[in-house]
Amino acid sequence: MKGIAILGSTGSIGCQTLEVIRSFPQHFSVVGLGGWRNLALLRKQVEEFHPALVSCQETERGSAPPGLGNATTVTLEEMVSHPQVDLVVMAVAGPAGLLPTLQALRSRKLVALASKEALVMGGQLIAQEMEAGATILPVDSEASAIWQCLRGEGQEVARLIITASGGPFRKRPISELASVTPEEALNHPTWRMGKKITVDSATLMNKGFEVIEAHWLFQTPWDRIQVALHPQSIVHSLVEFQDGTLKAQLAAPDMRLPIQYALFYPKRMPSQWGNGFDITRIGQLSFESLNRERYPCFDLALEAAQAGGTYPAALCAADEVAVGLFLERKLGFTEIPTLVQKVVDEHRSGSATSLEQIMDADAWARRRALEMAGA
Amino acid sequence: MKGIAILGSTGSIGCQTLEVIRSFPQHFSVVGLGGWRNLALLRKQVEEFHPALVSCQETERGSAPPGLGNATTVTLEEMVSHPQVDLVVMAVAGPAGLLPTLQALRSRKLVALASKEALVMGGQLIAQEMEAGATILPVDSEASAIWQCLRGEGQEVARLIITASGGPFRKRPISELASVTPEEALNHPTWRMGKKITVDSATLMNKGFEVIEAHWLFQTPWDRIQVALHPQSIVHSLVEFQDGTLKAQLAAPDMRLPIQYALFYPKRMPSQWGNGFDITRIGQLSFESLNRERYPCFDLALEAAQAGGTYPAALCAADEVAVGLFLERKLGFTEIPTLVQKVVDEHRSGSATSLEQIMDADAWARRRALEMAGA
Repeated sequence: MKGIAILGSTGSIGCQTLEVIRSFPQHFSVVGLGGWRNLALLRKQVEEFHPALVSCQETERGSAPPGLGNATTVTLEEMVSHPQVDLVVMAVAGPAGLLPTLQALRSRKLVALASKEALVMGGQLIAQEMEAGATILPVDSEASAIWQCLRGEGQEVARLIITASGGPFRKRPISELASVTPEEALNHPTWRMGKKITVDSATLMNKGFEVIEAHWLFQTPWDRIQVALHPQSIVHSLVEFQDGTLKAQLAAPDMRLPIQYALFYPKRMPSQWGNGFDITRIGQLSFESLNRERYPCFDLALEAAQAGGTYPAALCAADEVAVGLFLERKLGFTEIPTLVQKVVDEHRSGSATSLEQIMDADAWARRRALEMAGA
Repeated sequence: MKGIAILGSTGSIGCQTLEVIRSFPQHFSVVGLGGWRNLALLRKQVEEFHPALVSCQETERGSAPPGLGNATTVTLEEMVSHPQVDLVVMAVAGPAGLLPTLQALRSRKLVALASKEALVMGGQLIAQEMEAGATILPVDSEASAIWQCLRGEGQEVARLIITASGGPFRKRPISELASVTPEEALNHPTWRMGKKITVDSATLMNKGFEVIEAHWLFQTPWDRIQVALHPQSIVHSLVEFQDGTLKAQLAAPDMRLPIQYALFYPKRMPSQWGNGFDITRIGQLSFESLNRERYPCFDLALEAAQAGGTYPAALCAADEVAVGLFLERKLGFTEIPTLVQKVVDEHRSGSATSLEQIMDADAWARRRALEMAGA
C-alpha cells in the first residue's frame, strides 16, 4: 500500500485523484487530505478515506472544525513530510503550492505534480531538488504525455511538441474577443477542469505555463519546445527525436488517466476510464500552428520565463488576479493580457533563488494588479 | 565498427541500407553483400564497400563471375555465420530468406529483419530462436513503429494497431478493381518499395503479413492486433496499453528511417532523411476501419496464419506466383486472391516444425499455383 497525501483534495484534480484511488482500494492508503475553503466536501472525503492527517483554511488558522473524524490537523508542510506518506499529489492552485512542493521534494517523497504554477514560479528551486535526486511524476496531461514518450529513450531528443486544443475561442473573430463572457470562457470544448485553468486555456496562458513546466521537468531549452494546435485533444503531446522520428501519446481527454499513470508509475494498471478508445471512430486528428496574435498571453508567459528571475512569479500572480476579476465581470477577456503585461513590465525582478524572493514578487504583483485594475 | 552483412543488397531495402551506411562511414564495416540476379549493381556495391564476402546467383551455382573484387564467394548461410559479421540485414524476398534468417539467428547474430515472408512462413521456428535468446531488430516500418512504442514499457499491452495506407485503390469502386493494370498497382500513394511488396500493398496481403509478423515478433494474440487505414502513412503504427493510453510512432514515409533505427539500436543518430518533419504542415491525420470486402487478401492471410502449420507457407508461395503473373499481365488484379485461395484450400498442411516441411509446402504451392493459372 502506498501512503498518499493529496494537497488540494477538494479541487478538480484532487477529486479525480480520489476517484482513481477509490477504484484501487487495495493499493493506496490515504494518509493526508488537504483542502482549503470547501469544508463540506473535505468532511465527506475524511469520512470516506479516514486520513490520519488533515489540513484546511480553518486548521491553518489554528481552529479545529468538527466533522474531520480522528484526523490530526497539520499544516501542508507537516503533512508532506510525514513518515507514512510515500507519494504527495500536489494539486493546490496558485502560489500556495510552491512551499509544500519544495518541502515534499526535500523530504524525498514522490511528488505527483499537478500544480503547474509551482513550477512556473519556482522552476529553478524545484529543478535544484530534482538534480539533487528528488522525483516529480508529472500529472498535467501534456507533461505526462511527454514523460510517457520519453520512457525508455535516451538523450537524443530534438524537440518537445506540446499540443493545445486552442480553447473555446479558437475560431472566434479576434475583434469579438473583447466581449466574451465568463460563461463562454468556461465552456471548454474538450476538457473539464477548474475555473482558473479553464480561463487560462482560453487565453492560452495555460499553454505558456506548460512550456515552462516542460522546460524545467525535462531540462529542455526554450527553442526546442514547440506548441501545435490540436483541437481534438487526443494527442496530448509529442516528442521528436534527432533521428527524425516522433512519438505521440494519445488518450481520451480525461485527467484520471494521467493521474493514474503517475500514481502507479512505472506500472500501467487496467483503467475504468480509458476503455473503448477507437482511433477509427475518432477519424481525424488535426494540427495547426499557433496564431499568436489571437493568444497574447502565450507570448507573455514565454517572455517572462525567458527573462527569468521573479518575472514568472509576477506573471502568475498578475494572471491569477486578472482571471479572478474576469470571472467577477470586473475585467474584459482581452484586458487579461493587458493587465498582466502592465504588471510584468513594471516588475523589477530579483533573483529567484529563495522562496522568500518569489513570494515577495507574488505579493507585490498581486497588489499591483488589483491597484491597476482599480479593484 | 559493426560488421554488417546485407542479404538482398541489390533490392530496394538493400540499397537503402547502403545509403544509411554510406552516411555513417565511421560506424559500419560491410563484411558481406548478397545479391541475386542484378550482377551489375552488385559489382558497383562491391567496388564501393569492399566486402570480404559476396554471394549471388552465379556464385551459388559454383561459378565466380569477374568484377567482384577480392571478395570470397560464399553461400548466404556461410555469410551470416561469419565471425566478422555482427549484424545481418535480411532483405531477401520470398522463401530464400528463411534459411539464412534461421542460420543467422542460430549463430546469434543481430538480425535486422526486412524479409517478412520469412516470419510468415517460418514464424514458429523463428519464435523458437527468439525464445532461446536470438535477437531480431524489426525493419518493416510498422513493426519498427510497434517496437519503438514498446520501448521502455512493460507487459501491459492491450492491443497493437497497425496502420495501412490502403494502397492506390482505396477509393476505387470495387467493381473496377478487376481491370486495374500493373502500372496502377505499382503507383503507391506514399511509399517507394519493390514491385512485389507494392502489389501486396494494393491487395493488402502485405498488411496481413504484417499482422502475422507482429504476432510472432511481439508474441501478441491474433485478437489483440488491429489494422486501421491511415492514408497519410505518417503514423506507422500504435500500441494501446491496458490503462487506456496509446503510443504512436510518426515519421516521414521513408524506409531509411527504420533501417537506421535498427542499425543503431538502441541509439538514435541524427538523420539526413527525417528532418523538416512538421506536424502542423501535415495538418490532418485520418484513420478509418478496414473495408474487408475490398481487400480479400487480408482475410486470406489471417485465416492461413490462424490455421497454422504450413498454410502460411502455401499462402506466401501462391501469392508470389499470383503477383508475378499479375505483373506479367497473365492474371487480373482480383484473380490474385482467387488463385491464392484455391491453392490454400487445396493445401494439406503438415506441421511447420522443420524447415524441410515449410520448403516442401512452398514448392508444392508454387507448382500448384502455376498449374491452376495454366501458366
